[in-house]
Amino acid sequence: MSQVRVHNFSISLDGFGTGDGLTLDAPFGHAGERLHEWMFSTRSWLGEAGGSTGVDHAFAQQNVLNIGAEIMGRGKFGPPQAGPWTGAGTDDEWRGWWGPNPPFHTPVFVLTHHPRPSIEMEGGTMFHFVNTSPHEALDLARQAAGNLDVRIGGGPTTIRHFLAADLIDTLHVVQVPILLGRGVRLWDRLEGIEERYDVEAVSSPSGVTHLTFTRR
Amino acid sequence: MSQVRVHNFSISLDGFGTGDGLTLDAPFGHAGERLHEWMFSTRSWLGEAGGSTGVDHAFAQQNVLNIGAEIMGRGKFGPPQAGPWTGAGTDDEWRGWWGPNPPFHTPVFVLTHHPRPSIEMEGGTMFHFVNTSPHEALDLARQAAGNLDVRIGGGPTTIRHFLAADLIDTLHVVQVPILLGRGVRLWDRLEGIEERYDVEAVSSPSGVTHLTFTRR
Repeated sequence: MSQVRVHNFSISLDGFGTGDGLTLDAPFGHAGERLHEWMFSTRSWLGEAGGSTGVDHAFAQQNVLNIGAEIMGRGKFGPPQAGPWTGAGTDDEWRGWWGPNPPFHTPVFVLTHHPRPSIEMEGGTMFHFVNTSPHEALDLARQAAGNLDVRIGGGPTTIRHFLAADLIDTLHVVQVPILLGRGVRLWDRLEGIEERYDVEAVSSPSGVTHLTFTRR
Repeated sequence: MSQVRVHNFSISLDGFGTGDGLTLDAPFGHAGERLHEWMFSTRSWLGEAGGSTGVDHAFAQQNVLNIGAEIMGRGKFGPPQAGPWTGAGTDDEWRGWWGPNPPFHTPVFVLTHHPRPSIEMEGGTMFHFVNTSPHEALDLARQAAGNLDVRIGGGPTTIRHFLAADLIDTLHVVQVPILLGRGVRLWDRLEGIEERYDVEAVSSPSGVTHLTFTRR
């Protein structure tokens, strides 16, 4: 059976997976790029141009290995919005943050209470918009992924819902040594989930700490 | 000038420094001893009887070095209670959790809105009860400590207030790989304090991660 995986999900020391005040110009709000800087200096990000090949790279590069589909929340696909898809950056013309050739290269299932027609992008990415429970979305993604694994791509609320539903096999969280003070927390109301996992922590010379949860 | 230090302050992955439902029989509530188990297997705790001498011990043993006074919240001194000192475990007969010879061996200033007479214990510990701001309490503790340092002993709310007032020079937090889900958080409303500190993280084979904040 294919695995359900989370990779490179970055949080602050106080547990926020995204900042406050998300807009079209600030997809992570007041967090800016601070949650993801650790990744930008790895070879995974820079490619042949260089970059570190240490523990940050070793974790980061797993993100794309053996993945056949992604599930993401509407809040990852576009600027924050409730209700129908209207307004700049949120209407039917919006095709995600990632340009014409998004980095997914697989089917991507976007969870929304307001389904819309699927969008085929360059490079093999196909966005589907589904109004389903986490279990049903996972069934769809598994069918689309074939023998490959399914990535739960975020944001924090989506990952939290999948953790609460006990649907995640491996979880990789990167704890960044900053205090955001406000935003959306990853860990809310997840008491005791460590009992279902083997948990490891390893700190990196870059300052971040990698936490991995592997289902027992 | 003497330093103001925090040591061995343990929190869960979701940031709780104590659990929910604190009582006379459960000083850490539903957290039980889980936040502090990492310490119980160190030589610092076990003494000549054995115990690990690795990174957990190296951090743990700093707690008592060069300390001349402690400041703690009323919530560390006794079971949770607002208002006057009344009731089992909270009245004037209550002399702390630690028996006749507490492990402090210095003056200890207990922050409370309800001052009471000081209590002299065996082994050099003297509890003083003061209704002051963090700044004023620190002035008192510094006078009592002479050339030695002052420890801020907790609980989470007390440490948070001293961090918010920018009174802490070195902070050692131990992150334990459990999710408590409820309790009292350490990190609330401390946005951006990392800018005042050099922050290091080091993970231990025991599973915990030691975070140190050293004032720049």
